[in-house]
Amino acid sequence: MEQLKQAIMEKGVISGVDVLKVDSFLNHQIDPQLMNEIGLAFAERFADCGVTKVMTIETSGIAPAIFTGLHLGVPLLFAKKTKSITLDRRTYETKVLSFTKRKEYRIVVEQAYLTEADTVLLIDDFLAEGQALRGLIEIIEQAGATLCGAGIVIEKGFQHGGDRLREKGYRIESLAIIESMANHRIVFRD
Amino acid sequence: MEQLKQAIMEKGVISGVDVLKVDSFLNHQIDPQLMNEIGLAFAERFADCGVTKVMTIETSGIAPAIFTGLHLGVPLLFAKKTKSITLDRRTYETKVLSFTKRKEYRIVVEQAYLTEADTVLLIDDFLAEGQALRGLIEIIEQAGATLCGAGIVIEKGFQHGGDRLREKGYRIESLAIIESMANHRIVFRD
Repeated sequence: MEQLKQAIMEKGVISGVDVLKVDSFLNHQIDPQLMNEIGLAFAERFADCGVTKVMTIETSGIAPAIFTGLHLGVPLLFAKKTKSITLDRRTYETKVLSFTKRKEYRIVVEQAYLTEADTVLLIDDFLAEGQALRGLIEIIEQAGATLCGAGIVIEKGFQHGGDRLREKGYRIESLAIIESMANHRIVFRD
Repeated sequence: MEQLKQAIMEKGVISGVDVLKVDSFLNHQIDPQLMNEIGLAFAERFADCGVTKVMTIETSGIAPAIFTGLHLGVPLLFAKKTKSITLDRRTYETKVLSFTKRKEYRIVVEQAYLTEADTVLLIDDFLAEGQALRGLIEIIEQAGATLCGAGIVIEKGFQHGGDRLREKGYRIESLAIIESMANHRIVFRD
Protein backbone atom coordinates (compact mmCIF):
# COMPACT_ATOMS: atom_id res chain seq x y z
CA MET A 1 0.00 0.00 0.00
CA GLU A 2 1.81 3.05 -1.34
CA GLN A 3 0.26 5.68 0.97
CA LEU A 4 1.33 3.66 4.01
CA LYS A 5 4.86 2.99 2.74
CA GLN A 6 5.24 6.70 2.09
CA ALA A 7 4.14 7.53 5.66
CA ILE A 8 6.64 4.99 7.02
CA MET A 9 9.48 6.44 4.92
CA GLU A 10 8.63 10.03 5.82
CA LYS A 11 7.62 9.68 9.47
CA GLY A 12 9.00 6.39 10.79
CA VAL A 13 11.88 6.58 13.28
CA ILE A 14 14.25 3.65 13.67
CA SER A 15 15.28 3.04 17.28
CA GLY A 16 18.10 0.61 18.03
CA VAL A 17 18.47 -2.19 15.50
CA ASP A 18 14.94 -3.53 15.25
CA VAL A 19 12.38 -1.04 16.62
CA LEU A 20 10.41 1.16 14.22
CA LYS A 21 8.56 4.02 15.90
CA VAL A 22 5.50 5.23 13.99
CA ASP A 23 4.11 7.29 16.85
CA SER A 24 3.14 10.18 14.60
CA PHE A 25 0.47 8.31 12.63
CA LEU A 26 -0.21 4.88 14.16
CA ASN A 27 0.83 4.23 17.77
CA HIS A 28 0.29 7.47 19.71
CA GLN A 29 -0.96 10.10 17.31
CA ILE A 30 -3.18 8.40 14.72
CA ASP A 31 -4.06 9.55 11.20
CA PRO A 32 -7.79 8.77 10.77
CA GLN A 33 -7.79 9.19 6.96
CA LEU A 34 -4.92 6.72 6.60
CA MET A 35 -6.64 4.28 9.00
CA ASN A 36 -9.79 4.52 6.88
CA GLU A 37 -7.80 3.65 3.75
CA ILE A 38 -6.09 0.80 5.60
CA GLY A 39 -9.45 -0.56 6.77
CA LEU A 40 -10.76 -0.38 3.21
CA ALA A 41 -7.69 -2.22 1.89
CA PHE A 42 -8.16 -5.05 4.42
CA ALA A 43 -11.90 -5.26 3.71
CA GLU A 44 -11.17 -5.64 -0.01
CA ARG A 45 -8.42 -8.24 0.47
CA PHE A 46 -10.54 -10.38 2.79
CA ALA A 47 -13.91 -9.82 1.09
CA ASP A 48 -13.98 -13.47 0.00
CA CYS A 49 -14.04 -15.30 3.31
CA GLY A 50 -17.36 -14.47 4.96
CA VAL A 51 -15.95 -12.59 7.95
CA THR A 52 -18.43 -12.22 10.84
CA LYS A 53 -16.04 -10.53 13.28
CA VAL A 54 -12.81 -8.53 13.21
CA MET A 55 -10.49 -9.12 16.18
CA THR A 56 -7.44 -7.31 17.54
CA ILE A 57 -5.57 -6.70 20.81
CA GLU A 58 -5.72 -3.39 22.61
CA THR A 59 -4.41 -0.69 22.08
CA SER A 60 -2.82 0.18 18.75
CA GLY A 61 -4.70 -2.46 16.73
CA ILE A 62 -8.05 -0.80 17.43
CA ALA A 63 -7.82 2.07 14.93
CA PRO A 64 -7.04 0.01 11.79
CA ALA A 65 -9.39 -2.76 12.99
CA ILE A 66 -12.42 -0.54 13.57
CA PHE A 67 -12.27 0.75 9.99
CA THR A 68 -11.89 -2.80 8.69
CA GLY A 69 -15.03 -3.73 10.63
CA LEU A 70 -16.81 -0.66 9.25
CA HIS A 71 -16.04 -1.54 5.64
CA LEU A 72 -16.86 -5.24 6.12
CA GLY A 73 -20.04 -4.37 8.03
CA VAL A 74 -19.14 -6.53 11.06
CA PRO A 75 -18.30 -5.82 14.73
CA LEU A 76 -14.79 -5.47 16.14
CA LEU A 77 -13.81 -7.47 19.21
CA PHE A 78 -10.62 -6.50 21.00
CA ALA A 79 -8.78 -8.82 23.38
CA LYS A 80 -8.00 -7.10 26.66
CA LYS A 81 -4.57 -7.21 28.22
CA THR A 82 -4.39 -8.25 31.85
CA LYS A 83 -1.62 -9.19 34.24
CA SER A 84 -3.34 -11.96 36.15
CA ILE A 85 -5.19 -15.16 35.40
CA THR A 86 -8.85 -14.21 35.67
CA LEU A 87 -10.06 -17.73 36.56
CA ASP A 88 -13.33 -16.74 35.00
CA ARG A 89 -15.06 -19.57 33.20
CA ARG A 90 -16.83 -17.10 30.97
CA THR A 91 -13.61 -15.95 29.30
CA TYR A 92 -11.06 -17.35 26.88
CA GLU A 93 -7.51 -16.40 27.77
CA THR A 94 -3.90 -17.06 26.87
CA LYS A 95 -0.38 -15.74 27.37
CA VAL A 96 1.50 -13.44 24.99
CA LEU A 97 5.16 -12.44 25.11
CA SER A 98 5.55 -8.80 24.08
CA PHE A 99 8.40 -8.22 21.63
CA THR A 100 8.94 -4.52 22.36
CA LYS A 101 8.48 -4.77 26.12
CA ARG A 102 10.11 -8.19 26.61
CA LYS A 103 7.52 -9.22 29.15
CA GLU A 104 4.63 -11.61 29.28
CA TYR A 105 1.01 -10.56 29.56
CA ARG A 106 -2.35 -12.30 29.30
CA ILE A 107 -5.13 -11.55 26.88
CA VAL A 108 -8.77 -12.14 27.68
CA VAL A 109 -11.94 -12.31 25.58
CA GLU A 110 -15.46 -12.84 26.91
CA GLN A 111 -16.94 -16.05 25.58
CA ALA A 112 -20.26 -14.31 24.87
CA TYR A 113 -18.67 -12.43 21.97
CA LEU A 114 -16.88 -15.27 20.16
CA THR A 115 -18.46 -18.60 19.24
CA GLU A 116 -17.97 -21.46 16.79
CA ALA A 117 -20.41 -19.70 14.47
CA ASP A 118 -17.85 -16.90 13.90
CA THR A 119 -15.40 -16.45 11.03
CA VAL A 120 -12.69 -14.13 12.28
CA LEU A 121 -10.33 -11.71 10.56
CA LEU A 122 -7.41 -10.70 12.80
CA ILE A 123 -6.02 -7.19 12.42
CA ASP A 124 -2.93 -5.79 14.11
CA ASP A 125 -0.67 -2.78 13.75
CA PHE A 126 2.64 -4.69 13.85
CA LEU A 127 3.86 -8.22 13.19
CA ALA A 128 7.40 -8.91 14.39
CA GLU A 129 7.92 -12.32 15.97
CA GLY A 130 4.21 -13.13 15.73
CA GLN A 131 3.51 -13.63 19.44
CA ALA A 132 0.39 -11.47 19.53
CA LEU A 133 -1.07 -13.20 16.46
CA ARG A 134 -0.34 -16.61 17.96
CA GLY A 135 -2.19 -15.55 21.12
CA LEU A 136 -5.20 -14.41 19.11
CA ILE A 137 -5.18 -17.65 17.07
CA GLU A 138 -5.13 -19.60 20.35
CA ILE A 139 -8.22 -17.67 21.53
CA ILE A 140 -10.02 -18.41 18.24
CA GLU A 141 -9.19 -22.11 18.64
CA GLN A 142 -10.54 -22.08 22.21
CA ALA A 143 -13.80 -20.64 20.87
CA GLY A 144 -13.96 -23.17 18.02
CA ALA A 145 -14.35 -20.24 15.62
CA THR A 146 -13.03 -20.23 12.04
CA LEU A 147 -9.95 -18.14 11.23
CA CYS A 148 -10.05 -16.33 7.91
CA GLY A 149 -6.56 -14.84 8.17
CA ALA A 150 -4.68 -11.83 9.50
CA GLY A 151 -4.26 -8.34 8.11
CA ILE A 152 -1.16 -6.54 9.34
CA VAL A 153 -0.38 -2.87 8.88
CA ILE A 154 3.42 -3.15 9.20
CA GLU A 155 5.27 -6.46 9.14
CA LYS A 156 8.92 -6.55 10.12
CA GLY A 157 9.90 -9.23 7.62
CA PHE A 158 13.43 -9.55 8.98
CA GLN A 159 12.05 -10.97 12.23
CA HIS A 160 10.28 -13.75 10.28
CA GLY A 161 7.21 -14.16 12.53
CA GLY A 162 4.99 -13.69 9.48
CA ASP A 163 6.95 -16.16 7.36
CA ARG A 164 6.73 -18.83 10.07
CA LEU A 165 2.95 -18.38 10.30
CA ARG A 166 2.61 -18.53 6.48
CA GLU A 167 4.63 -21.76 6.46
CA LYS A 168 2.05 -23.22 8.84
CA GLY A 169 -0.66 -22.39 6.32
CA TYR A 170 -2.09 -19.21 7.83
CA ARG A 171 -3.14 -16.44 5.47
CA ILE A 172 -1.19 -13.34 6.52
CA GLU A 173 -1.54 -10.20 4.42
CA SER A 174 0.60 -7.21 5.31
CA LEU A 175 0.19 -3.78 3.77
CA ALA A 176 3.89 -3.02 4.19
CA ILE A 177 6.64 -5.58 4.80
CA ILE A 178 9.97 -4.19 5.92
CA GLU A 179 12.78 -6.44 4.66
CA SER A 180 15.60 -4.53 6.31
CA MET A 181 16.31 -1.55 8.55
CA ALA A 182 20.10 -1.97 8.39
CA ASN A 183 22.12 1.27 8.54
CA HIS A 184 18.93 3.15 9.49
CA ARG A 185 17.60 2.67 5.96
CA ILE A 186 14.14 1.13 5.42
CA VAL A 187 13.90 -1.39 2.57
CA PHE A 188 10.49 -2.87 1.74
CA ARG A 189 9.93 -6.43 0.51
CA ASP A 190 8.48 -6.46 -3.02
CA MET B 1 -28.59 10.67 20.19
CA GLU B 2 -31.46 8.23 19.69
CA GLN B 3 -29.49 5.37 18.11
CA LEU B 4 -27.08 5.35 21.06
CA LYS B 5 -29.82 5.55 23.70
CA GLN B 6 -31.55 2.63 22.05
CA ALA B 7 -28.32 0.57 22.12
CA ILE B 8 -27.89 1.40 25.82
CA MET B 9 -31.47 0.39 26.61
CA GLU B 10 -31.29 -2.84 24.61
CA LYS B 11 -27.73 -3.97 25.33
CA GLY B 12 -26.51 -2.18 28.48
CA VAL B 13 -26.12 -4.29 31.61
CA ILE B 14 -26.27 -2.64 35.04
CA SER B 15 -23.78 -4.10 37.50
CA GLY B 16 -24.03 -3.17 41.18
CA VAL B 17 -25.51 0.27 41.84
CA ASP B 18 -23.46 2.48 39.55
CA VAL B 19 -21.65 0.44 36.85
CA LEU B 20 -23.11 0.25 33.34
CA LYS B 21 -21.54 -2.44 31.16
CA VAL B 22 -21.77 -1.76 27.44
CA ASP B 23 -19.28 -4.44 26.43
CA SER B 24 -21.36 -5.57 23.46
CA PHE B 25 -21.00 -2.34 21.45
CA LEU B 26 -18.48 0.02 23.09
CA ASN B 27 -15.98 -1.41 25.59
CA HIS B 28 -15.02 -4.90 24.39
CA GLN B 29 -16.96 -5.64 21.24
CA ILE B 30 -17.39 -2.40 19.29
CA ASP B 31 -20.05 -1.48 16.72
CA PRO B 32 -18.17 0.39 13.94
CA GLN B 33 -21.32 1.81 12.30
CA LEU B 34 -22.48 3.28 15.61
CA MET B 35 -18.98 4.67 16.29
CA ASN B 36 -19.04 6.32 12.86
CA GLU B 37 -22.39 7.97 13.67
CA ILE B 38 -21.06 9.05 17.08
CA GLY B 39 -17.94 10.55 15.45
CA LEU B 40 -20.13 12.42 12.98
CA ALA B 41 -22.34 13.74 15.81
CA PHE B 42 -19.31 15.08 17.71
CA ALA B 43 -17.80 16.58 14.54
CA GLU B 44 -21.07 18.47 13.90
CA ARG B 45 -21.45 19.67 17.48
CA PHE B 46 -17.88 20.97 17.69
CA ALA B 47 -17.58 22.18 14.08
CA ASP B 48 -17.42 25.79 15.31
CA CYS B 49 -14.25 25.80 17.37
CA GLY B 50 -11.37 25.23 14.97
CA VAL B 51 -10.24 21.88 16.35
CA THR B 52 -6.72 20.89 15.29
CA LYS B 53 -6.50 17.69 17.33
CA VAL B 54 -8.83 15.17 18.95
CA MET B 55 -7.55 13.66 22.20
CA THR B 56 -8.59 10.67 24.30
CA ILE B 57 -7.15 8.11 26.75
CA GLU B 58 -6.52 4.52 25.74
CA THR B 59 -8.38 2.14 25.35
CA SER B 60 -12.13 2.54 24.93
CA GLY B 61 -12.02 6.19 23.92
CA ILE B 62 -10.11 5.40 20.74
CA ALA B 63 -13.02 4.09 18.63
CA PRO B 64 -15.37 7.08 19.02
CA ALA B 65 -12.41 9.48 18.90
CA ILE B 66 -10.91 8.16 15.66
CA PHE B 67 -14.21 8.72 13.82
CA THR B 68 -14.48 12.21 15.30
CA GLY B 69 -11.00 12.93 13.94
CA LEU B 70 -11.98 11.47 10.57
CA HIS B 71 -15.04 13.69 10.23
CA LEU B 72 -13.21 16.80 11.49
CA GLY B 73 -10.21 16.04 9.26
CA VAL B 74 -7.70 16.19 12.14
CA PRO B 75 -5.41 13.65 13.87
CA LEU B 76 -6.26 11.75 17.04
CA LEU B 77 -3.79 11.74 19.91
CA PHE B 78 -4.34 9.21 22.70
CA ALA B 79 -2.80 9.56 26.14
CA LYS B 80 -1.05 6.38 27.21
CA LYS B 81 -1.62 4.81 30.60
CA THR B 82 1.46 3.94 32.59
CA LYS B 83 2.14 2.87 36.15
CA SER B 84 5.33 4.77 36.78
CA ILE B 85 6.58 8.32 36.53
CA THR B 86 8.51 8.38 33.28
CA LEU B 87 10.82 11.28 34.28
CA ASP B 88 11.05 12.04 30.60
CA ARG B 89 11.34 15.73 29.85
CA ARG B 90 9.83 15.17 26.44
CA THR B 91 6.45 14.11 27.85
CA TYR B 92 3.52 15.72 29.63
CA GLU B 93 2.09 13.55 32.37
CA THR B 94 -0.39 13.55 35.22
CA LYS B 95 -2.25 11.25 37.59
CA VAL B 96 -5.79 9.93 37.12
CA LEU B 97 -7.93 8.03 39.61
CA SER B 98 -9.95 5.33 37.85
CA PHE B 99 -13.60 5.22 38.92
CA THR B 100 -14.29 1.62 37.89
CA LYS B 101 -10.98 0.20 39.06
CA ARG B 102 -10.52 2.41 42.14
CA LYS B 103 -6.84 2.81 41.52
CA GLU B 104 -4.52 5.54 40.38
CA TYR B 105 -2.65 5.49 37.11
CA ARG B 106 -0.57 7.99 35.15
CA ILE B 107 -1.23 9.24 31.66
CA VAL B 108 1.54 10.35 29.34
CA VAL B 109 1.60 12.34 26.09
CA GLU B 110 4.69 13.09 24.01
CA GLN B 111 5.29 16.83 23.82
CA ALA B 112 6.04 16.59 20.10
CA TYR B 113 2.35 15.94 19.40
CA LEU B 114 0.73 18.69 21.47
CA THR B 115 1.73 22.34 21.41
CA GLU B 116 0.29 25.75 22.21
CA ALA B 117 -0.73 26.01 18.56
CA ASP B 118 -3.31 23.24 19.09
CA THR B 119 -7.03 23.54 19.76
CA VAL B 120 -8.13 20.26 21.31
CA LEU B 121 -11.42 18.40 21.41
CA LEU B 122 -11.47 15.72 24.11
CA ILE B 123 -13.48 12.56 23.44
CA ASP B 124 -14.16 9.75 25.88
CA ASP B 125 -16.47 6.78 26.16
CA PHE B 126 -17.65 7.44 29.72
CA LEU B 127 -17.89 10.38 32.10
CA ALA B 128 -18.63 9.45 35.71
CA GLU B 129 -16.73 11.44 38.31
CA GLY B 130 -14.71 13.23 35.66
CA GLN B 131 -11.24 12.10 36.72
CA ALA B 132 -10.07 11.09 33.23
CA LEU B 133 -11.27 14.38 31.74
CA ARG B 134 -9.54 16.35 34.47
CA GLY B 135 -6.32 14.49 33.69
CA LEU B 136 -6.61 15.29 29.99
CA ILE B 137 -7.39 18.95 30.76
CA GLU B 138 -4.26 19.06 32.95
CA ILE B 139 -2.16 17.72 30.03
CA ILE B 140 -3.64 20.37 27.70
CA GLU B 141 -2.76 23.07 30.24
CA GLN B 142 0.81 21.75 30.50
CA ALA B 143 1.09 22.04 26.72
CA GLY B 144 -0.41 25.53 26.68
CA ALA B 145 -2.92 24.31 24.10
CA THR B 146 -6.49 25.61 23.79
CA LEU B 147 -9.34 23.40 24.97
CA CYS B 148 -12.44 23.46 22.80
CA GLY B 149 -14.50 21.11 24.97
CA ALA B 150 -15.26 17.47 25.58
CA GLY B 151 -17.54 15.07 23.75
CA ILE B 152 -18.71 12.14 25.85
CA VAL B 153 -20.50 9.05 24.59
CA ILE B 154 -22.20 8.11 27.89
CA GLU B 155 -22.35 10.42 30.89
CA LYS B 156 -23.49 9.03 34.21
CA GLY B 157 -25.29 12.19 35.30
CA PHE B 158 -26.03 10.87 38.78
CA GLN B 159 -22.30 10.93 39.58
CA HIS B 160 -22.15 14.66 38.71
CA GLY B 161 -18.60 14.77 37.30
CA GLY B 162 -19.96 16.41 34.15
CA ASP B 163 -22.03 18.95 36.09
CA ARG B 164 -19.03 20.00 38.18
CA LEU B 165 -16.94 20.53 35.04
CA ARG B 166 -19.77 22.52 33.39
CA GLU B 167 -20.00 24.72 36.51
CA LYS B 168 -16.31 25.52 36.03
CA GLY B 169 -17.09 26.73 32.52
CA TYR B 170 -15.98 23.76 30.46
CA ARG B 171 -18.07 22.81 27.44
CA ILE B 172 -19.12 19.19 27.95
CA GLU B 173 -21.46 17.61 25.39
CA SER B 174 -22.71 14.10 26.06
CA LEU B 175 -24.65 12.05 23.53
CA ALA B 176 -26.50 10.20 26.30
CA ILE B 177 -26.79 11.32 29.92
CA ILE B 178 -28.07 8.74 32.36
CA GLU B 179 -29.97 10.45 35.16
CA SER B 180 -30.67 7.31 37.15
CA MET B 181 -30.07 3.56 37.18
CA ALA B 182 -32.13 2.96 40.34
CA ASN B 183 -33.96 -0.38 40.50
CA HIS B 184 -31.99 -1.54 37.43
CA ARG B 185 -33.95 0.86 35.25
CA ILE B 186 -32.14 3.35 33.01
CA VAL B 187 -33.59 6.86 32.90
CA PHE B 188 -32.03 9.44 30.56
CA ARG B 189 -31.75 13.16 31.32
CA ASP B 190 -33.79 15.21 28.83
